[in-house]
Amino acid sequence: MPVKIVGATPSAYQYPLLIKQLLLTPLATVPDQEITYQGRLRYTYRELRQRIGRLANVLSSLGVEAGHTVAMMDWDSHRYLESFFAVPMMGAVLQTVNVRLSPEQILYTLNHARADVVMVNSEFFPILAEIAGRLESVRAFILISDEAVLPASPVVAAGEYEAMLAAAEANYDFPDFDENAQATTFYTTGTTGNPKGVYFSHRQLVLHTLGIASGTGNAAGQGRLHREDVYMPLTPMFHVHAWGFPYLATMLGLKQVYPGRYQPDVICRLVEEEGVSFSHCVPTILHMVFGHPAAAKTDFSGWKLVIGGAAMPEAMAGAALARGIDLFTGYGMSETCPVLTLAHLSTADLEKSPAEQAVIRAKTGRPLPLVDLRVVDAQMRDVAHDGKATGEVVVRSPWLTLGYLHAPEASEELWAGAYLHTADIGNIDPAGYLKVTDRIKDVIKTGGEWTSSLQLEDIIARHDAVHEVAVIGVPDDKWGERPLALVLLKPEFVGQVSEHALRNYAAHAIEAAGVSRYGVLLQVRFVKTLVKTSVGKMNKRLMRADPDALCL
Amino acid sequence: MPVKIVGATPSAYQYPLLIKQLLLTPLATVPDQEITYQGRLRYTYRELRQRIGRLANVLSSLGVEAGHTVAMMDWDSHRYLESFFAVPMMGAVLQTVNVRLSPEQILYTLNHARADVVMVNSEFFPILAEIAGRLESVRAFILISDEAVLPASPVVAAGEYEAMLAAAEANYDFPDFDENAQATTFYTTGTTGNPKGVYFSHRQLVLHTLGIASGTGNAAGQGRLHREDVYMPLTPMFHVHAWGFPYLATMLGLKQVYPGRYQPDVICRLVEEEGVSFSHCVPTILHMVFGHPAAAKTDFSGWKLVIGGAAMPEAMAGAALARGIDLFTGYGMSETCPVLTLAHLSTADLEKSPAEQAVIRAKTGRPLPLVDLRVVDAQMRDVAHDGKATGEVVVRSPWLTLGYLHAPEASEELWAGAYLHTADIGNIDPAGYLKVTDRIKDVIKTGGEWTSSLQLEDIIARHDAVHEVAVIGVPDDKWGERPLALVLLKPEFVGQVSEHALRNYAAHAIEAAGVSRYGVLLQVRFVKTLVKTSVGKMNKRLMRADPDALCL
Repeated sequence: MPVKIVGATPSAYQYPLLIKQLLLTPLATVPDQEITYQGRLRYTYRELRQRIGRLANVLSSLGVEAGHTVAMMDWDSHRYLESFFAVPMMGAVLQTVNVRLSPEQILYTLNHARADVVMVNSEFFPILAEIAGRLESVRAFILISDEAVLPASPVVAAGEYEAMLAAAEANYDFPDFDENAQATTFYTTGTTGNPKGVYFSHRQLVLHTLGIASGTGNAAGQGRLHREDVYMPLTPMFHVHAWGFPYLATMLGLKQVYPGRYQPDVICRLVEEEGVSFSHCVPTILHMVFGHPAAAKTDFSGWKLVIGGAAMPEAMAGAALARGIDLFTGYGMSETCPVLTLAHLSTADLEKSPAEQAVIRAKTGRPLPLVDLRVVDAQMRDVAHDGKATGEVVVRSPWLTLGYLHAPEASEELWAGAYLHTADIGNIDPAGYLKVTDRIKDVIKTGGEWTSSLQLEDIIARHDAVHEVAVIGVPDDKWGERPLALVLLKPEFVGQVSEHALRNYAAHAIEAAGVSRYGVLLQVRFVKTLVKTSVGKMNKRLMRADPDALCL
Repeated sequence: MPVKIVGATPSAYQYPLLIKQLLLTPLATVPDQEITYQGRLRYTYRELRQRIGRLANVLSSLGVEAGHTVAMMDWDSHRYLESFFAVPMMGAVLQTVNVRLSPEQILYTLNHARADVVMVNSEFFPILAEIAGRLESVRAFILISDEAVLPASPVVAAGEYEAMLAAAEANYDFPDFDENAQATTFYTTGTTGNPKGVYFSHRQLVLHTLGIASGTGNAAGQGRLHREDVYMPLTPMFHVHAWGFPYLATMLGLKQVYPGRYQPDVICRLVEEEGVSFSHCVPTILHMVFGHPAAAKTDFSGWKLVIGGAAMPEAMAGAALARGIDLFTGYGMSETCPVLTLAHLSTADLEKSPAEQAVIRAKTGRPLPLVDLRVVDAQMRDVAHDGKATGEVVVRSPWLTLGYLHAPEASEELWAGAYLHTADIGNIDPAGYLKVTDRIKDVIKTGGEWTSSLQLEDIIARHDAVHEVAVIGVPDDKWGERPLALVLLKPEFVGQVSEHALRNYAAHAIEAAGVSRYGVLLQVRFVKTLVKTSVGKMNKRLMRADPDALCL
């Protein structure tokens, strides 16, 4: 296209989109705003900026330069926030290491990303001990501990984080560079094969921050994020930048609360004592918090909570609403930076009954600005937006990984047809709400039809006796696949309800709800445990492989 | 910097920031939302998208291609909104013509921008008649009229807007192209010399839209813009894209109301009948609305109103608050796309008295995300943020014009030192609020310090004998400049007060008020007359050039 490109006078500043610029507004307007770690340490944005400078000088002294990779292994902390800024602002790449992977997988990702320096919390020294001898590119370690004294380290370390920061200069002149410079990388917890690396540039992270700023800020009322909110992450900072919200919270100058390792009692205390009003988590975490005795005594009212990473059971939405929690769904994945949609309710929706609201809150949401989200059939044709027709969710936005690191085939598969393939199955209703019903690999193909395992789980989970449930497809000669519900009973119901009785209840409920004509084919088995991935999602691949091994 | 640039797999979509993408979310979520022109015509976003396609096909049929320029001469209308999208989305440049300039100046800007096609409302046919013969690049005219029948046209026209749209195809496959493609241009109304052209790219307009989305959306409560607001512009669409809000309103899928030519009774009616809840204007427009009899009967409560373009008198803020209008200040200019700051009040501020609130609402505001706003001395050093120290406001953001069209010297002056010079003088208080006090040409540099001529005039004008006063700087070997007050006495005081006596009074009052240590340097001369511009502002440029000529 012979468009006219805007000319710039030689002295003009051609503003690249860089992470450092997210700090401009808070430092200009709320330098004394507070950031706290577990309530036991607190400092101001002014000090944050100084500590970012100190960390950059520490890393420089270890030889870190633009283009190098610095890996972080910590729980959610102020230190993690510092690394979110300092490392990319130097022109280096921050690798956020998924500490819930197996030591072998962690070793694989550190070698694959060619990490130069590793910052590691003492809690992960056992992992380090196992892999240190096989790290191929790491030249230095910085040790981290909440305590004054570090336990014996399995590696020769350059020093301890706090001591090194204290000894370093706060001034660091963060340079400008190409906005397409890589800022972060991390590895997806693929259930098959080796973890795959995704990567995001400064431009992408800044645009994602602006996208979620509008997505959360311009909401009519329900669930909106504003400059007087108090933010606390409850999805790990190693996992898709804690959904990008630490960058947003910083840009808006919010009070920020970092909880460390997720402990339900600590979370309850922080919500109440620090006045936390905005968080995000996977359903499992909320489940864990509610399951702790401290939750009964905690006032959660006014806590806005974005639920993502897995479908939110409508039952959970109802329970949370009853506690005064304003929860709603967000949608995205590692490959998408992550946020694509948010399921805010309109003012009219808020007039509806809690049960009706729970349905909307459990939808996957409506696209953020600039997000081009489609549900398509196998030929990439849009399906009808009638809330019924399903297809694969494909997407374009300014903040998607442009491939997998050193994996050209998987990258091309991800981007087939110039849309990113989410491998999620869903539908869009006439109001534009996406409802993700399944992962492509989680749908059950019965009699030539796709049935959503998640919908079946939702229905079964409503039974009083059910603690947790996973529905998988098992091979069937006649039907192709038939649904099998693996059910973990609440302890008090063990022995009180039979598989047969629960099956009959569930099969009828499924048919009554009209989600599948094949409810009658449902089987129910009670299990000792359900298999989950490192980030708390159901690992259906493993459960499908050998369901019998799990059963009572 | 040897940063690592993110690689893209061949099939990946490398999302350019283009104006067409602002339409994605509203079309996906609220296609039936309403846009109305004066309440007498209304259509949906779905139709907006079709009309954008039709307009592009009409322009194509007239030979408009990427890189060409299409000029618009209309009042604020749905047609203007259509041109905001259709023209840039074709890869062409939209010239928004300031219809309040003189015909000669309009001629100059159309020739200077090399406009290929002009779309012109019949109300401006008299202007067209005067200049049509001297247009150098225009190859076609499209005529616009609200009425069914067009008045006789002074030019041979390709057709009438509505008829041409009706005959055109709605489908138009808007292409992707470089995000740095020029999207818009318009001319500043400089008081000296010819108007100067500024220009903005797709990238800049998209980023400005995201910037004001967060700036307005993440506000704590006061003045926040959300998806259920009803938007109506009250700064002209020819003037800095109506401050960019039509793009934001569209991206958010708001109901939009276009008022046509600004008529106070129509504005009052639209606010009430259409439920307008968010607008923006210069103080003069609000003054005009309040001055009309219809205003007395209009319920303005809940109307959020951004005031900009000139300092908001605190008295106006008070009067508007009393009518239930939630008004607050925004700051920017033609060169800055325009918005740089907004003066939202915090929840704590809202506890203050109306008089105290009015002071904050009349401040210039706090910077939007990504805006790097400084107040600097002549050596580009930051002044103290104490609410007192003044300097020039200089700025960087992703949405500033990168020069003036075909004006290299003025462009370099604008961008001296790689910051855009606003030519505004102001201070920043400890809470980060900017307060603009003067235009730079109105300050006097004495002994290395800047003194506001407006503040000195304010003090001198309080003397009983003074009818009008203009304070200018005159060259001084020792002090650089010293202030000279040109005073027009009230007739009854002529001969009753001496220059010397008034000087002593004024010098003491200035020092007592603490606005300048250099009051002692003040000189006073009585004049026959003061020189003003065509719009009644003091013409200090002319008075500085030869003050003696004015004196008695």
